[in-house]
Amino acid sequence: MDVLKGAVDFVQNKTKVEINQRDIEKILSALNSTNHFWEVIFLSQKPFAVVRETINYLISIDFVKTDESGNLILTEKGKEFISANNIPVVKNYTCSYCEGRGIVFSEIKDAYEKFKEIVKTRPDAIVEYDQGYVTEETAYSRIALMIKKGDLVGKRLIVFGDDDLVSIAAALTKLPKEVIVLEIDKRLVDFINQAAKEHNLNLKAIEYDFRNKLPDDFVKSFDTFTIDPPETIEALDLCFTRTISSLKGAGCAGYFGLTNIEASLSKWHEFQKLLLNKFNAVITDIIENFNHYVNWNYLLPSLESSLTFVNVQPKLNWYTSSMYRIELVKDVDIKNEYINCELYIDKEAILYKEN
Amino acid sequence: MDVLKGAVDFVQNKTKVEINQRDIEKILSALNSTNHFWEVIFLSQKPFAVVRETINYLISIDFVKTDESGNLILTEKGKEFISANNIPVVKNYTCSYCEGRGIVFSEIKDAYEKFKEIVKTRPDAIVEYDQGYVTEETAYSRIALMIKKGDLVGKRLIVFGDDDLVSIAAALTKLPKEVIVLEIDKRLVDFINQAAKEHNLNLKAIEYDFRNKLPDDFVKSFDTFTIDPPETIEALDLCFTRTISSLKGAGCAGYFGLTNIEASLSKWHEFQKLLLNKFNAVITDIIENFNHYVNWNYLLPSLESSLTFVNVQPKLNWYTSSMYRIELVKDVDIKNEYINCELYIDKEAILYKEN
Repeated sequence: MDVLKGAVDFVQNKTKVEINQRDIEKILSALNSTNHFWEVIFLSQKPFAVVRETINYLISIDFVKTDESGNLILTEKGKEFISANNIPVVKNYTCSYCEGRGIVFSEIKDAYEKFKEIVKTRPDAIVEYDQGYVTEETAYSRIALMIKKGDLVGKRLIVFGDDDLVSIAAALTKLPKEVIVLEIDKRLVDFINQAAKEHNLNLKAIEYDFRNKLPDDFVKSFDTFTIDPPETIEALDLCFTRTISSLKGAGCAGYFGLTNIEASLSKWHEFQKLLLNKFNAVITDIIENFNHYVNWNYLLPSLESSLTFVNVQPKLNWYTSSMYRIELVKDVDIKNEYINCELYIDKEAILYKEN
Repeated sequence: MDVLKGAVDFVQNKTKVEINQRDIEKILSALNSTNHFWEVIFLSQKPFAVVRETINYLISIDFVKTDESGNLILTEKGKEFISANNIPVVKNYTCSYCEGRGIVFSEIKDAYEKFKEIVKTRPDAIVEYDQGYVTEETAYSRIALMIKKGDLVGKRLIVFGDDDLVSIAAALTKLPKEVIVLEIDKRLVDFINQAAKEHNLNLKAIEYDFRNKLPDDFVKSFDTFTIDPPETIEALDLCFTRTISSLKGAGCAGYFGLTNIEASLSKWHEFQKLLLNKFNAVITDIIENFNHYVNWNYLLPSLESSLTFVNVQPKLNWYTSSMYRIELVKDVDIKNEYINCELYIDKEAILYKEN
């Protein structure tokens, strides 16, 4: 299939992301199912830049065209290829009752209702810290997962960066022994501490920059951590140096989201090796599309894209991530020291700008 | 907590499986929720031998006693410890609509109904090949997952060992290009080929022993594989040598179940390293309790246990496994040759007999 090979070469050359012909097939399958760019990303679960450049290639060979509203439309030529190669329409196999997470949180419904009230006045997401928070259902599904796995009741939980406000979600259940938040954004630190005070929660937020060493009394001190890390390998390495350092030892667990949108499977592979080989962690769960992020308001302006199909207002929560749970299988000794690091941007990041 | 430490030492010494105090906590939490041995395993998701020896230890220190029917009952001393240490009752956070899988298969309901008819006359599970098949809902959820992930429609699927009859489930949807089964048990080979003939399916089963090299025309020949491997590291290494060899290359995918019942997290860790480092595979999904196995009829007789709490008829489908999906990120070259290997039994296997 020369089209697929041509697309791989073009996209790889443009994005420097390692991809294969099946990635292109998945994007074609998504284009066979929607005309909305952000939904193509959601359905194909391929990196933003890979989807964008694949579409640019498909436009250049007259498989796809765009209309004046930025919709993506398959041409006759495109449709013929798709039909000849048996590329399917994406059908919906996701359980609508739990949004595909497999988890329900009716047991902690009261806390959830309170949470929805509290977060109404949350600070806006800002680009400086790569924020973009999850839905309230996501937050409570994550808490339910932690309870189910034995990682919350009576445990000390540490939250690294909390634009999602899962610390408040956790503390409202009254189940953890204690919840600590480390967060760089003073607005969030204040918001969380204010909520803790008002609602009498065993919860404390502290201003903290990941690059700094972990406060000494937080080393080997927690049962469970949660984090939504930036997705460069450098940042992941730094984040897990901190998070793993905070755990008491073997049997302790960590929760975090990882996307397919800013992290290719090659990057997943590299990152998983880091978890297993460097940090003595085993992966116990990966649940796709568990975390649903609310569309953040700085997206389109900061993209500065000249492509009409990119410059369309998203009409769904297209940005999702897989929920990982890891568990330490052996204690691990990690140096607790300052580490410098460019946190947020690599060539797979949405906000990466070509020179 | 000396009790937990004592339990870890005792169990580790008895089973030679690496465990930690949180494993014991999880078993205590399960004992706080049911008095049925097989449900303790299901709720704690710890290896059979670890659960059995933990209970033996707890009986020896008068935390647990058994009644004449083999029920497990917490003593006052046990209850006090559980309360003092904030060890919770296990509550149900699993979505009942999809049985926690996140996947529904209504799109392929017709094939499912046909499947239920066909499997009524399936051969019985036998101990010789470590059989024990999944429920029909499991089989169709697995097929739905493959479709959702783009791994079935128009693809060549290979099934390694098929007491689950997922090959028939897949072929009945008419979605794959072709389905091939490699299976050691002639009864199953005949059953599958008979079903293929009767229902006009693009499906063929072939007698095959894993230790033999893969038939040459199956090397680098398939888009997708599925397998329910035996869970010794040696067997896993062998199985994945065969399954990965059958895949065309990068972007191709594999599906398999792995339990917590016959594989500790230390074994998971070792196995995951194998997948990542040796086979160039990335793990894209791990969905807990996805695969539900029907209670196999040879269980209690082959256990030959003298423990009353073990010798009780299971009253639930307690044997479950996590669904893994992996994807090749790079092509990998594997020698295709005969490999000798003791497939089924190690010290974590249910049927392992102490000397």
